[in-house]
Amino acid sequence: MIPLGRARMVGVLGGMGPAATVDFYGKLVEETAASSDQEHVPVVIWGDPRVPDRSMSLLGRGEDPTPHLRRGIGELRRSGCEVLAVPCNTAHAFVPSLAEEAGLELVSIVEVTAAALAADGVRAAGLLATTGTLRADLYGPALRRHGITPFEPDEPGQHEVMAAIAAVKSGRAGREHGEALAAQARSLAARGAGRVVAACTEVVLALDPAQVPVPVVDPARLLAREVVRVALNAEPARA
Amino acid sequence: MIPLGRARMVGVLGGMGPAATVDFYGKLVEETAASSDQEHVPVVIWGDPRVPDRSMSLLGRGEDPTPHLRRGIGELRRSGCEVLAVPCNTAHAFVPSLAEEAGLELVSIVEVTAAALAADGVRAAGLLATTGTLRADLYGPALRRHGITPFEPDEPGQHEVMAAIAAVKSGRAGREHGEALAAQARSLAARGAGRVVAACTEVVLALDPAQVPVPVVDPARLLAREVVRVALNAEPARA
Repeated sequence: MIPLGRARMVGVLGGMGPAATVDFYGKLVEETAASSDQEHVPVVIWGDPRVPDRSMSLLGRGEDPTPHLRRGIGELRRSGCEVLAVPCNTAHAFVPSLAEEAGLELVSIVEVTAAALAADGVRAAGLLATTGTLRADLYGPALRRHGITPFEPDEPGQHEVMAAIAAVKSGRAGREHGEALAAQARSLAARGAGRVVAACTEVVLALDPAQVPVPVVDPARLLAREVVRVALNAEPARA
Repeated sequence: MIPLGRARMVGVLGGMGPAATVDFYGKLVEETAASSDQEHVPVVIWGDPRVPDRSMSLLGRGEDPTPHLRRGIGELRRSGCEVLAVPCNTAHAFVPSLAEEAGLELVSIVEVTAAALAADGVRAAGLLATTGTLRADLYGPALRRHGITPFEPDEPGQHEVMAAIAAVKSGRAGREHGEALAAQARSLAARGAGRVVAACTEVVLALDPAQVPVPVVDPARLLAREVVRVALNAEPARA
């Protein structure tokens, strides 16, 4: 058992979107081997859903979310957080430099995912992500560093992905959105992807892995697992 | 649509336990009629699971959680929160005075539940709660003010309830714990309770309302609904 005093406080920059933050917080609790409240990781969640759309900003069509993100990270730092988790893939276009500026240790959803794929011997991975994440090539460098080739949907397919993400964010995701995501995932698998990465925290909420012929990787789950390890100063898990 | 600028920031004093806080946060998101991230209520969650056990303290057998609770409320205030929600019934033995001290508007899980029962014309309500909540008579005054008689399990029944709550907190709740809670709920209904109140945020996670012959009231859901209304300065919902 890790002595309680050693647990580092985790700051979660959330609200992007709120349902994805709820999902991540649930995974954080699930990934903690605790037998009482008191053994859980202390966490502060800054859930400001008013952060301007990250994907639109990356496409040059919307307000810069940086001031909002900087404020949230600053508040988490002031509250005593030492470790930062951001359960929004697209926001990783902005947060690494802001975390460094604030002196917080960012556990990057991109890096933990690339490392997990590499540990599994994956050579090609399909990405279901926002158009902002793809255009900013957030996953490309980390994947290529591990010798993994990223695949993404074609343009009409990417429109389907974005429509599904918007449906989840609006609370009106239906069966058709899950099926559209599964169709894109199958297409990526058919092109040779050994894994499909649900590289948007909303995709995870609508995609049924049972409808995809290759394993679907959930970066939010991997992030939660690594955050618990880092917060408790535990040894890295064996692959 | 409520103008975004008018939304008041909600502070959630959580972590007691963590799974119940995840559940409450999910209900807060569900209870918001939002069609994009940006229309959701801004929220900060202080999730310190290291707060000493509230029930044990109320029974005179554990450390006073007040300093931990005061710190969390203070941090929420400093972060700019104006409205306070505490998804832990037992903690309501401590938080009203601390919220007042910090200048935060507490939306009390006890008061919203008593008001909802009264609006439904309930005259007798059974309580599935921690022994601390029952001994401190947290629900009694609010219910009696509305002319509602509270019922609680007998002593062996209350032991069953506490065992189920402990199982949820330790992440090892099974079918037998849900059935034990349902048996106590049925016994309260048999004694004349028109509603069973799942007056501990862990009870909600293990009790299946379909196994109870009277409606099961979820205070966490009622709290989430009222918090959204207060944060958005909306008119009270019609009963």
